[in-house]
Amino acid sequence: MEQKCSAVIIGVGPERGLGATLAKYFAAKGLHVYIAGRSEDKLQQVAERIRQRGGSATTVLADATVESDVAHLFKIAQLDAYRIDIAAYNVDSNIPSPLLETDAETFTALWQQNCLGAFFFGKEAVKAMKDGQKGTLFFTGATASLRAKPPFTAFAAAKAGLRALAQGMAREFSPQGVHVVHAVIDGVIDGERAENQFPDYVKAKGKDGLLQLDAIAETYWAMHKQHPSAWTHELDLRPFKEPF
Amino acid sequence: MEQKCSAVIIGVGPERGLGATLAKYFAAKGLHVYIAGRSEDKLQQVAERIRQRGGSATTVLADATVESDVAHLFKIAQLDAYRIDIAAYNVDSNIPSPLLETDAETFTALWQQNCLGAFFFGKEAVKAMKDGQKGTLFFTGATASLRAKPPFTAFAAAKAGLRALAQGMAREFSPQGVHVVHAVIDGVIDGERAENQFPDYVKAKGKDGLLQLDAIAETYWAMHKQHPSAWTHELDLRPFKEPF
Amino acid sequence: MEQKCSAVIIGVGPERGLGATLAKYFAAKGLHVYIAGRSEDKLQQVAERIRQRGGSATTVLADATVESDVAHLFKIAQLDAYRIDIAAYNVDSNIPSPLLETDAETFTALWQQNCLGAFFFGKEAVKAMKDGQKGTLFFTGATASLRAKPPFTAFAAAKAGLRALAQGMAREFSPQGVHVVHAVIDGVIDGERAENQFPDYVKAKGKDGLLQLDAIAETYWAMHKQHPSAWTHELDLRPFKEPF
Amino acid sequence: MEQKCSAVIIGVGPERGLGATLAKYFAAKGLHVYIAGRSEDKLQQVAERIRQRGGSATTVLADATVESDVAHLFKIAQLDAYRIDIAAYNVDSNIPSPLLETDAETFTALWQQNCLGAFFFGKEAVKAMKDGQKGTLFFTGATASLRAKPPFTAFAAAKAGLRALAQGMAREFSPQGVHVVHAVIDGVIDGERAENQFPDYVKAKGKDGLLQLDAIAETYWAMHKQHPSAWTHELDLRPFKEPF
Repeated sequence: MEQKCSAVIIGVGPERGLGATLAKYFAAKGLHVYIAGRSEDKLQQVAERIRQRGGSATTVLADATVESDVAHLFKIAQLDAYRIDIAAYNVDSNIPSPLLETDAETFTALWQQNCLGAFFFGKEAVKAMKDGQKGTLFFTGATASLRAKPPFTAFAAAKAGLRALAQGMAREFSPQGVHVVHAVIDGVIDGERAENQFPDYVKAKGKDGLLQLDAIAETYWAMHKQHPSAWTHELDLRPFKEPF
Repeated sequence: MEQKCSAVIIGVGPERGLGATLAKYFAAKGLHVYIAGRSEDKLQQVAERIRQRGGSATTVLADATVESDVAHLFKIAQLDAYRIDIAAYNVDSNIPSPLLETDAETFTALWQQNCLGAFFFGKEAVKAMKDGQKGTLFFTGATASLRAKPPFTAFAAAKAGLRALAQGMAREFSPQGVHVVHAVIDGVIDGERAENQFPDYVKAKGKDGLLQLDAIAETYWAMHKQHPSAWTHELDLRPFKEPF
Repeated sequence: MEQKCSAVIIGVGPERGLGATLAKYFAAKGLHVYIAGRSEDKLQQVAERIRQRGGSATTVLADATVESDVAHLFKIAQLDAYRIDIAAYNVDSNIPSPLLETDAETFTALWQQNCLGAFFFGKEAVKAMKDGQKGTLFFTGATASLRAKPPFTAFAAAKAGLRALAQGMAREFSPQGVHVVHAVIDGVIDGERAENQFPDYVKAKGKDGLLQLDAIAETYWAMHKQHPSAWTHELDLRPFKEPF
Repeated sequence: MEQKCSAVIIGVGPERGLGATLAKYFAAKGLHVYIAGRSEDKLQQVAERIRQRGGSATTVLADATVESDVAHLFKIAQLDAYRIDIAAYNVDSNIPSPLLETDAETFTALWQQNCLGAFFFGKEAVKAMKDGQKGTLFFTGATASLRAKPPFTAFAAAKAGLRALAQGMAREFSPQGVHVVHAVIDGVIDGERAENQFPDYVKAKGKDGLLQLDAIAETYWAMHKQHPSAWTHELDLRPFKEPF
């Protein structure tokens, strides 16, 4: 009997967000999904929707920046008989802030959420995958990892760290069968967060100017399905209308 | 009645090469393929194979570095009632050469094949696609476009030019609906060319250390199928065992 | 009467180290130097040497990763009548470590020393310089900021963050007259640290394969002397024999 | 008796241009200068000015894109007893052009001037320098080498080729004592060319927004004086007010 596959996703929030969308997408492909985030309510909502559509999900309350939470998440996943095929670090935290107004707490929190948590998550994912010599580890990145522009310097410093982490992990673990993907999201995702945080921007851009959630999930899936002889480590994703 | 789609591919050589593989792959997906290259024999062989498998193909003898040849290729494609959905510039020419031993002819020829031809091809492709506001334009690139290392300096100079061309075209034509993809092939493709040019390297690397032809074609297809709200402009492709 | 200039340098350790060398170099150019580090003994030794050569120096015991220490350093510097012309963040901490053997403490400590401290230092420097619309702020970086390679992934993640910080600060504060320079040190510095940490490497490379301390200081000085119409933000520095 | 030093500079045009400024600057430092360009009148004017100030210069009519012209230039330089200490490729040709309006002639001419000529020049310079294991080879680059933006795609493709050429040459010839520098000029130079080509831009930017000629020459000189243990291969230069 073939072992059932699963995906572990951290950074799952509102249903119309990237974390939830990846979870629903992977579940629709037949994977059991472990969905982790900081809001039990939101996790339950996403899990409920997945089950309605015939999928299966386990919710795990976890803060990505707390090492023991991340370890706990993977422990739960490994208690089941499922193989972990996909692990996606989807925590993304951005606060625009002119540098002189940025305090140590903000600078540190951005790094913890965008980089330190990814380190915790990446380590656990690799430990879970490398024995089977198989698995895809996603890090959701941003253009800021490539170019630091005020008032996003603190965010850029954190995302640049994430990108380096992903690159170093790809170099270290690809030969052991772990596919490490760094996706550079260049633009704003058409989801609940953007609607709440900058409704005017969302309105001004329109559908064509925002990344659609399912479109991102499709490409993540295509990356997961790549043959190991032609793996992609890094790729950008942006709306066709986005100037870059 | 829906208009039939087609793909135009230049740089089609031996059957076990990337150009031919892309042609066969796209044909298997139902597209009519226009395959262009410098060897009538090789083109016929590829076309024959495509037809055996139920696909349809038109061969066009063309040198990518000759502007009128490229114009002719697209003219033929447009005579038919097919829409051009994909255009792939797959010419790749590499000659290792210490700089002081590189003559003007070699430096120029590498540029003509890796960059000038891509300019001719890209222009024609965009002209054919932009009216329909749709289409994917592929440029097959190399890691040398990112890092110039002797004895591949002339090759790198040409491929860096190609990368800049692709990037500028993406910025100019994405908003008009043309998806421009620059694929950075990082490694050696498991095909006829490598077997002939460096058989020892091919043997030493083994299957796991070489890019498989179909694996590349699959990712090209996934890029073509991306939703315009989340287009990839650049991605790398390498064997999981390739140090990078 | 013209106001005397000064330089603030943090990360001053052994006399044959980059921090100490920058201090001696700037002092020899007539600047009063505020030298900060974690070893009172080492600071005293460097200050002593500077005074012997006719320069003037103030030592400040400070840990770059402690915000109040950094604030205190700049407070002391501003108590004097000197203008701060140069501020150099020269803390550099590197621990090779395979990722699965890297613990949270190490990952965090590397980030604190290579990136968080630079944020504290950069903020204070800018605050001190921007009123006079003048000053050069140096961040000593490393090649790891551009390429993450195991077993230096954690170090690379920290240095990539530093690079982004420097770039964002350059974009934000250059127009206000603060010259932000990120120097990518590509290779090993011929100093006390390398001799202690990897004596074999130092021996194998020989003089020609190691960066000489004064050579680096000379280039820092040249950057400081650049006319504002042609400022350099980033440059690499490597021994001519270093493969790159 | 010490051998007198010299510099070879190609791309010398109007007196208030970068080629002429480098020539005057190096001559003022005591080097004999060989100045090459396509206008005898302009060369004579620059040479005259150099002589008036006590320097010495030889003019050589040469088109950088013609291999025999470049070879001839270095032959003349080597007939004298001078050692070639500096060689500067300063040809820069830029034509804004939407891609579909760019013809083969323009695309090719931009490449010949920005890249092919640099290959001819670089080869001759290295041949002249490597026996003495000494010398600095400058390539004047542009930001377009790093980012291709319409309507400068053709220019970017050429400059990206130049950058790769410079990088490959640095990797190949640094260990042999030839210091290869790629200077990324990010902005508009305050000289005769900009005044003629885009007077409005020049007026709008003002002094603070344009690179001053002497400021660039000073940094080139600082690079030339670097100790081989800490060579810079690439650096950017931009006005402090330039957004980047």
